[in-house]
Amino acid sequence: MDERVREHAAVLVDWSARIEAGDNVVLSAGPDAHELAVAVAEELGERGANLLATYSSGEVTRAYLRAHDGDFDENPAHERALLEESDVYLSLGGGRNTSATADVPGEIRQAYSSARTEIREERYDTRWVSTVHPTRSLAQQANMAFEEYREFAYDAILRDWESLAEEMARLKDLLDEGTEVRLVSTDTDLTVSIEGRTAVNSAASVVYDSHNLPSGEVFTAPAATEGVVSFDVPMTIRGEPVRNARMTFEDGEVVDYAAEQGEDVIGEILETDAGARRLGELGIGMNRGIDRYTDNILFDEKMGETIHLALGRAYDACLPDGESGNDSAVHVDMITDVSADSRLEIDGEVIQENGRFRWEERGSERTE
Amino acid sequence: MDERVREHAAVLVDWSARIEAGDNVVLSAGPDAHELAVAVAEELGERGANLLATYSSGEVTRAYLRAHDGDFDENPAHERALLEESDVYLSLGGGRNTSATADVPGEIRQAYSSARTEIREERYDTRWVSTVHPTRSLAQQANMAFEEYREFAYDAILRDWESLAEEMARLKDLLDEGTEVRLVSTDTDLTVSIEGRTAVNSAASVVYDSHNLPSGEVFTAPAATEGVVSFDVPMTIRGEPVRNARMTFEDGEVVDYAAEQGEDVIGEILETDAGARRLGELGIGMNRGIDRYTDNILFDEKMGETIHLALGRAYDACLPDGESGNDSAVHVDMITDVSADSRLEIDGEVIQENGRFRWEERGSERTE
Repeated sequence: MDERVREHAAVLVDWSARIEAGDNVVLSAGPDAHELAVAVAEELGERGANLLATYSSGEVTRAYLRAHDGDFDENPAHERALLEESDVYLSLGGGRNTSATADVPGEIRQAYSSARTEIREERYDTRWVSTVHPTRSLAQQANMAFEEYREFAYDAILRDWESLAEEMARLKDLLDEGTEVRLVSTDTDLTVSIEGRTAVNSAASVVYDSHNLPSGEVFTAPAATEGVVSFDVPMTIRGEPVRNARMTFEDGEVVDYAAEQGEDVIGEILETDAGARRLGELGIGMNRGIDRYTDNILFDEKMGETIHLALGRAYDACLPDGESGNDSAVHVDMITDVSADSRLEIDGEVIQENGRFRWEERGSERTE
Repeated sequence: MDERVREHAAVLVDWSARIEAGDNVVLSAGPDAHELAVAVAEELGERGANLLATYSSGEVTRAYLRAHDGDFDENPAHERALLEESDVYLSLGGGRNTSATADVPGEIRQAYSSARTEIREERYDTRWVSTVHPTRSLAQQANMAFEEYREFAYDAILRDWESLAEEMARLKDLLDEGTEVRLVSTDTDLTVSIEGRTAVNSAASVVYDSHNLPSGEVFTAPAATEGVVSFDVPMTIRGEPVRNARMTFEDGEVVDYAAEQGEDVIGEILETDAGARRLGELGIGMNRGIDRYTDNILFDEKMGETIHLALGRAYDACLPDGESGNDSAVHVDMITDVSADSRLEIDGEVIQENGRFRWEERGSERTE
């Protein structure tokens, strides 16, 4: 086994999920994440945690969903009970085909997602962490050779998270103190309120309310969105390519949208429920270890000199205690490149210009 | 997908587990049982059952167990809760190496098994069915080519279960009426009491209290075992080959044992707990569709002209309502060939001689 697989497992278990003896852990493994699942199982055994492995296969899900009539039972009791009694949920992504569920009808997907709201809430109540094992299908999606992709993935994952967390704390402080954010870029002029919201210093650990590995972003829950935004970073959503999506917001809601490619998918998402037409997240990528787009949201949204917005569900960590933010069965991120012709303002003050924060020196790590 | 994979899934879901809309189903898939898992997921979707897939990998289990100090938490709440709320548990065996857990120390195995008694009980309280997807590693264990093995496996699995159930009912009736069984064969002269016990017509369906696919055996829960038995069918137990094991029973308990190969494994099993030294099952193979030993208990014990005994746990279905039979964390089957120099008596009456039941015509399906 590649030593980096073991290091990945150790970072996931220790830094990210903070696993201790006696923790009840669900290990959700993709079909091609087997090697990482083995390494994580070893870490869990060493720590005396309790392991239950689940199988997360796009092909199994596709077969089930396509055969189903769409009248799904609400929150099946066995899965809900499992999550209610779980302390930790580790998702190890890694399939054989990133488009494995591409031909599942949108209305079936939506019905399935809507019927599982409480199950999702239970999962979010655990110390959950999502990561991926570098697979051939992810390499293909990134237009990269397998070995090349592994280098890329481990460069993003095996970082000095403690020092990155310190860097990101600066931006979090500014967002916590601010009331309004404005983003101006090509085909973009968007204003959101962040009053009373708490930004998350997403340093790939549950102790920072950060649930992705890799991470490296600062995000908050916006409200009262007004204006236009263009998402120029190409990505695959629900198995379909989406290119240059644009949306217009009024009173916090999407009132118009278009896309060069994948407009149907956007429409499908917006139809899920009322919350799907509002923003749940504004995130600012700060992981400069990620040096290119790979059409994988887990990596792309963390990349330095990018900003992303998510339609749908807001994370509770951004809201005052007891309050809930935007609610939806979906949470779909889309990304805009801010490395040029862009500026980010908090309460009228420019915080980032052309990808560089005001405290950064002229030469950033990312060179043109 | 091979049409037989779909037929296998349909038999499993309809005949074996009797799955209906709303059933909460755990689908436990081995790493190489993926194709069958996809076919079963489709059947579950069609029926409106609720699917949760778990991952059953020998390599994951090995890594976990070898790293653990052996002081396991009793019946972790998340796994127990899952099974408590499940109606059906489908185990789709199929790994890449049937010896994947061979180097897990016996005492760790035992401690793990003993700590999971209630979880096992919860699983046995569901409509559970164990089957296997024909894999290359199972073909190898059977000394067969992959394609050849698939033919063998589907011949055993895709049978006319309804008519086999009728054939087996005859033997069940004799066992239910009888009080004592005697088996005489090479190096074997064993007597057990079956008074008050109910035989199971194991026709591969939960409605017959039969939980294996393929099946095709009639079994009961013996008591008061006395005598000597020799298990001449070669098999692999816990990843280790066992050859010609012999045991002597007094007052129902193993008092002496030996084996040409695998004696350590037998010893390890007997040490698990008090119940591991007593028999939990006497089974009579009646599936003449299985025409050779393949070193896989799921098939071997069902083969016509064989008889098997299990150390450990008895199945409740064989006991009067409210009574429990032999209790143990283990249930380990071993097989003896009764096709020659053998006879089986119930209360002194010969029921089977040299593999042929007294009601069978001279020429059985299995020819010498």
